Amino acid sequence: MVSVPFLTLASGYNMPQVGFGLWKVPRETTAETVYNAIKLGYRLFDGAYDYQNEKEAGEGVRKAIADGLVTREEIFITTKLWNNYHKKEHVLKMAKHQNDTWGLGYIDLYLIHFPIALEFIDPSEFEFPAWWVDSARSGVALDKVPIAETWQAMEATVDVGIARSIGVSNFSAQLIYDIQSYARHPISALQIEHHPYLVQSELIKLAQENNIAVTAYSSFGPQSFLELPPDFSDKAKAVGPLFENECVVAIAAKHGKTSAQILLRWATQRGIAVIPKSNSKDRLLQNLDVSSFCLTEDEIKSISNLNCGLRFNDPGEYLVTSPLRIFA
Amino acid sequence: MVSVPFLTLASGYNMPQVGFGLWKVPRETTAETVYNAIKLGYRLFDGAYDYQNEKEAGEGVRKAIADGLVTREEIFITTKLWNNYHKKEHVLKMAKHQNDTWGLGYIDLYLIHFPIALEFIDPSEFEFPAWWVDSARSGVALDKVPIAETWQAMEATVDVGIARSIGVSNFSAQLIYDIQSYARHPISALQIEHHPYLVQSELIKLAQENNIAVTAYSSFGPQSFLELPPDFSDKAKAVGPLFENECVVAIAAKHGKTSAQILLRWATQRGIAVIPKSNSKDRLLQNLDVSSFCLTEDEIKSISNLNCGLRFNDPGEYLVTSPLRIFA
Repeated sequence: MVSVPFLTLASGYNMPQVGFGLWKVPRETTAETVYNAIKLGYRLFDGAYDYQNEKEAGEGVRKAIADGLVTREEIFITTKLWNNYHKKEHVLKMAKHQNDTWGLGYIDLYLIHFPIALEFIDPSEFEFPAWWVDSARSGVALDKVPIAETWQAMEATVDVGIARSIGVSNFSAQLIYDIQSYARHPISALQIEHHPYLVQSELIKLAQENNIAVTAYSSFGPQSFLELPPDFSDKAKAVGPLFENECVVAIAAKHGKTSAQILLRWATQRGIAVIPKSNSKDRLLQNLDVSSFCLTEDEIKSISNLNCGLRFNDPGEYLVTSPLRIFA
Repeated sequence: MVSVPFLTLASGYNMPQVGFGLWKVPRETTAETVYNAIKLGYRLFDGAYDYQNEKEAGEGVRKAIADGLVTREEIFITTKLWNNYHKKEHVLKMAKHQNDTWGLGYIDLYLIHFPIALEFIDPSEFEFPAWWVDSARSGVALDKVPIAETWQAMEATVDVGIARSIGVSNFSAQLIYDIQSYARHPISALQIEHHPYLVQSELIKLAQENNIAVTAYSSFGPQSFLELPPDFSDKAKAVGPLFENECVVAIAAKHGKTSAQILLRWATQRGIAVIPKSNSKDRLLQNLDVSSFCLTEDEIKSISNLNCGLRFNDPGEYLVTSPLRIFA
């Protein structure tokens, strides 16, 4: 079995540096996918309320525990608070609900998914994907909830033992500084879009200097967005796939690895955690094996030099009816 | 006399769209410079505690009022709260102090200069420029002051009648959204670095959609930074001057205007306020005359296309001992 290194979080807990991302994993196959990933050596699963497959992911983990493949303590569950539940009266309720849905006793890492508060939507009244739109499906209805209120409620999820560590996703430098000025529990992790087209080296330095573990999502760049509706995927289709990028392919050939492995290693070698997914057993194993080889400094630099600030996941860009421009 | 249009702020007050920026104006010549600028038609003066010439600027304005050139109501004073005074007990004190220093009865627009709280420095104990460093001059000492605390103290400066409008400078989208979730007085203005090498179109759209007036600083790009010490100026020296940029020069020739006027008009025509400075009377007059002609949509686009995300004023880059990376 491949050995995956850990990052020690500011909370004191260890987080595996490679995990399995549950975004876009169909609900029907999630339990089996998770179970099989555990068999292959995956220990971290990166979920979210928004992904709508927490229940099934939890089933997969529980079956693996029941079958003696792993213990609960060996598993690391990340999940995220969705935008409609930023108010203090909703955060703890959602954390409890999500924790019950996973059915694993506790959440290892609970993140604020976006630095955006949208109006409350009762999950029982609206079908997914209502989460980015208001009840009339006409656009995003922002709500006025300070991030401080949400963060303090996130801290309460630690106090009551639901979450072991807390953090943020899609947050930029200024808001991270601001949270740090009032945080009672540390920001343990920052999850961001990160690939050679969007390197964000300053944000990563800031996080790492402040003992905030960085997790990269969409490590393969446009690849993650090709299967989405046109509003999301147009930009991704317009650029060449990173897997076929000349520079990445040449480095992969030199090391006898796949392009995917090079892209993941480029991140992990710089201390960043990754959460790829795949439907193929071979690729799952390859993705897990990202610390058995090292890139040279020059190789890392040449990949970083592909940076062109190309972001695929900015709500303000793909939500045409939305005034949100959170990364501006 | 050239007529300068106004922008109506969220507070209800009008702000001239062209003003005179006091950054780097030597204290010795400030009073005279301000007085002469008023004679030429300037009505807005953009100052800051950090610029260390508020007293002299106020003297220039008071002399112009005494001489009957303008009334106080025709003048618009912007000034800014410095990083060491973000705590609630310091904000109102500094606002009063700065207001007394100007000696004009009230401040038209008071901005938080940076979204960064640094440890308190007693201004009477340290010589300028101590403001970016700690008392040992070894680097920046961050302080833990939530932006909410500072914003609420800024609101108090409105309540007591010191400031008519309040706003922010160098703030990015996420923090602006956050302030809006708890603001009791509106964010009337956002001042940002803005030139063809750093267009920030999404941030400007966000501000304008939210009725936040945008003021561009460093409209001439690298020009503003050439005279600074090497840590600040190296990047500016490495790029070509915008005044000589092919695209800008061609458009200037077509309109029979200077490059500076084209760069300012490119901003004002998109609803952005500008605060150039100059030591030359001719250029001062030219800079003020930025609404007597219009660029075509294509000309505006071709200038905007010079954008390469090149920022000259990021504390995290030029303060080598600092962990600050506020724009990352």
